[in-house]
Amino acid sequence: MARIVMKFGGTSMAGIERIRNVARRVRREVEAGNEVAVVVSAMAGETDRLVQFCREASSLYDPREYDVVVSSGEQVTSGLLAIALQAMGVRARSWLGWQMPIRTSDAHASARIGEIETAGLLAAMRDGEVAVIPGFQGVAPGERITTLGRGGSDTSAVAVAAAVGADRCDIYTDVDGVYTTDPRIVPKARKLARVTYEEMLELASVGAKVLQTRSVGLAMKEKVRVQVLSSFDDAPDAATLPGTMIVGEDEVETMERQLITGIAHDKNEAKVTLTAVPDRPGAVATIFSPLADASINVDMIVQNVAHSTGSTDVTFTVPQAELARALDVLEKQRPTIGYESLVHDTSVAKISVVGVGMRSHAGVAAAMFKALADRGINILAITTSEIKVSVLIHEDYTELAVRVLHTTYGLDADEAA
Amino acid sequence: MARIVMKFGGTSMAGIERIRNVARRVRREVEAGNEVAVVVSAMAGETDRLVQFCREASSLYDPREYDVVVSSGEQVTSGLLAIALQAMGVRARSWLGWQMPIRTSDAHASARIGEIETAGLLAAMRDGEVAVIPGFQGVAPGERITTLGRGGSDTSAVAVAAAVGADRCDIYTDVDGVYTTDPRIVPKARKLARVTYEEMLELASVGAKVLQTRSVGLAMKEKVRVQVLSSFDDAPDAATLPGTMIVGEDEVETMERQLITGIAHDKNEAKVTLTAVPDRPGAVATIFSPLADASINVDMIVQNVAHSTGSTDVTFTVPQAELARALDVLEKQRPTIGYESLVHDTSVAKISVVGVGMRSHAGVAAAMFKALADRGINILAITTSEIKVSVLIHEDYTELAVRVLHTTYGLDADEAA
Repeated sequence: MARIVMKFGGTSMAGIERIRNVARRVRREVEAGNEVAVVVSAMAGETDRLVQFCREASSLYDPREYDVVVSSGEQVTSGLLAIALQAMGVRARSWLGWQMPIRTSDAHASARIGEIETAGLLAAMRDGEVAVIPGFQGVAPGERITTLGRGGSDTSAVAVAAAVGADRCDIYTDVDGVYTTDPRIVPKARKLARVTYEEMLELASVGAKVLQTRSVGLAMKEKVRVQVLSSFDDAPDAATLPGTMIVGEDEVETMERQLITGIAHDKNEAKVTLTAVPDRPGAVATIFSPLADASINVDMIVQNVAHSTGSTDVTFTVPQAELARALDVLEKQRPTIGYESLVHDTSVAKISVVGVGMRSHAGVAAAMFKALADRGINILAITTSEIKVSVLIHEDYTELAVRVLHTTYGLDADEAA
Repeated sequence: MARIVMKFGGTSMAGIERIRNVARRVRREVEAGNEVAVVVSAMAGETDRLVQFCREASSLYDPREYDVVVSSGEQVTSGLLAIALQAMGVRARSWLGWQMPIRTSDAHASARIGEIETAGLLAAMRDGEVAVIPGFQGVAPGERITTLGRGGSDTSAVAVAAAVGADRCDIYTDVDGVYTTDPRIVPKARKLARVTYEEMLELASVGAKVLQTRSVGLAMKEKVRVQVLSSFDDAPDAATLPGTMIVGEDEVETMERQLITGIAHDKNEAKVTLTAVPDRPGAVATIFSPLADASINVDMIVQNVAHSTGSTDVTFTVPQAELARALDVLEKQRPTIGYESLVHDTSVAKISVVGVGMRSHAGVAAAMFKALADRGINILAITTSEIKVSVLIHEDYTELAVRVLHTTYGLDADEAA
């Protein structure tokens, strides 16, 4: 017997037939003797429809009322899954965010989960009743409905798993696990049996869109064992499904450790360059402080060596979605910064190699640079962390770079087998 | 300054443009210095969509989960109207059923409103904030969401009006008031300036589908002044709109009282006849007790004089929707009742003349029978109350009967003017 939390995304909940499939999968876990809580998303497309209503009603909508509107999508699917489970003879009830309750901050539309009261929930689960919980929602002080931000249902599932002390949090999604890289680019990509929280964070934040980044951070903090697996697979039991388990570093056997776990790519960055910035103390601060004040996420930063003229070029990347705002801020700061020209380029891609193994191995970055140079791929910027090396290249070379690096680090399926 | 409750139905809430129209109408009341609460329905068609989901999920759905699903429609429109009001500079917030709370019985899917806690609501309204309240929903003991049954938003509005001691409850609908009869049948039908609760109850229950019957009963009990008016009219101020005011009998001036207020018709009845029922004490009870046990509403009852054979025919009406169940019950009871044959007829219509004025006037029924007889319309059954006379006729004569009676009682527009 185990206590498990299962989470199903919008594609799995899109229509009654699919909800029935979800119910069958939940029933298998119940019949295996497990205590089960299920966290559900809204039907695919429903949240977009509701968000659109709010935008049409007012471009500057009140986030408290936005939360009232958009939280309804998960309310509907939680009730429907409870009905579908009962129709299969499985006892079940829905627990809305305010009913448990799942207490959150009052940062409407992007609230953070605080305390989850689990007394009622646990009593029901111990009594053999499946708890169906709408993801994405909670309740703020003052009893107003909150939502957690798009993709928040992953975070709901991990938070509930932590609160009820679940043995496992199974995230059912439309991919069947986490791969060494995007299988659409590299057919020889391998599914990873295990990946550490830290690696998953790096892989997720650089473009492997399997789980919401916040949910991985929360799982790491709360030590929740998360399993990513396919909702379209039809294996008899999730415990034997070949998904990917996301675990602490101590749980990964030294034997099975690869130097590099995966290669990620991200085409949503934009490169910004300020030319001829005066080379004096504090110059860089005049650039990045106003960007930080405007909540713009700056990622890679390269400062060229000073020209003989006493000036330097500064290059950095921002998300493409924040480029217009960044340019606006920099234009306004021009008198203070004193740069010559402001140029930007969205035809760039960030390629990252990720692996906890690189902590104890030198030469990962050097091998990367050599492999790319051998193919004539120019590196525009570099950034590194303890378990990641990222480079910025022209986006035309994205697929080539990912394939080359996948081979370089011995990740191709035939080699690993 | 007045405290008013405004209620808008699904047609008025169908889409953002219409919600903006509603917001403009609400703003006018606010600008006139009134304290305003607004009760809203779901977008037209939305409740049907949600009910259909539940039915697809299971033909025997759990009404508690059904309530979770279907209550979401009003949750969405309440949030959207609050956003639309704010966009016009009107302070507003949504108050969901569980937030006020509106306490109800635990008869899920057809709950009855108990107590409404108004402290928070009234404080907000006194402070100039419009309270937007989703109709149709409440919360049962144990904090589960309930709904009031289809059309329940009218009842929500009247209940809120009673709880906050509103000066007026304005029900905006897609007709512009209550008429002496269906204007599609009688072009000379007149809109009534005032109608009493009792008359409205009789008119509503026999087919004038303007307000949910329960809401009228509640308004009568709580002495809430209800005004029915069109949501498509564009008069500047509801107080001057020529809708219909539903009031207590004491508020109707004797001067303006007509003998008859209106003529209603209902084609949803079915006639059932049991032939050759033994004419002995208790025979009738063996027919109607089992029907009552099966919650079948029997309306008109006619028992013919006993045949010389010691038997009699019994005729009565039931709603067509309950006919199949009624026949089933009667077939099973045949040995006990001992009738000869069971025949039914759905080609019937009930025509009713309604008016508090008939209390003090004799001859209303006689005038009705004569008018119908003059046109060769056969009467199949008769039932009367203090303020109503109803007859059952063949449905082919419905429109003719309504027109004839409308003229007979002097209700035609040109005569009244």
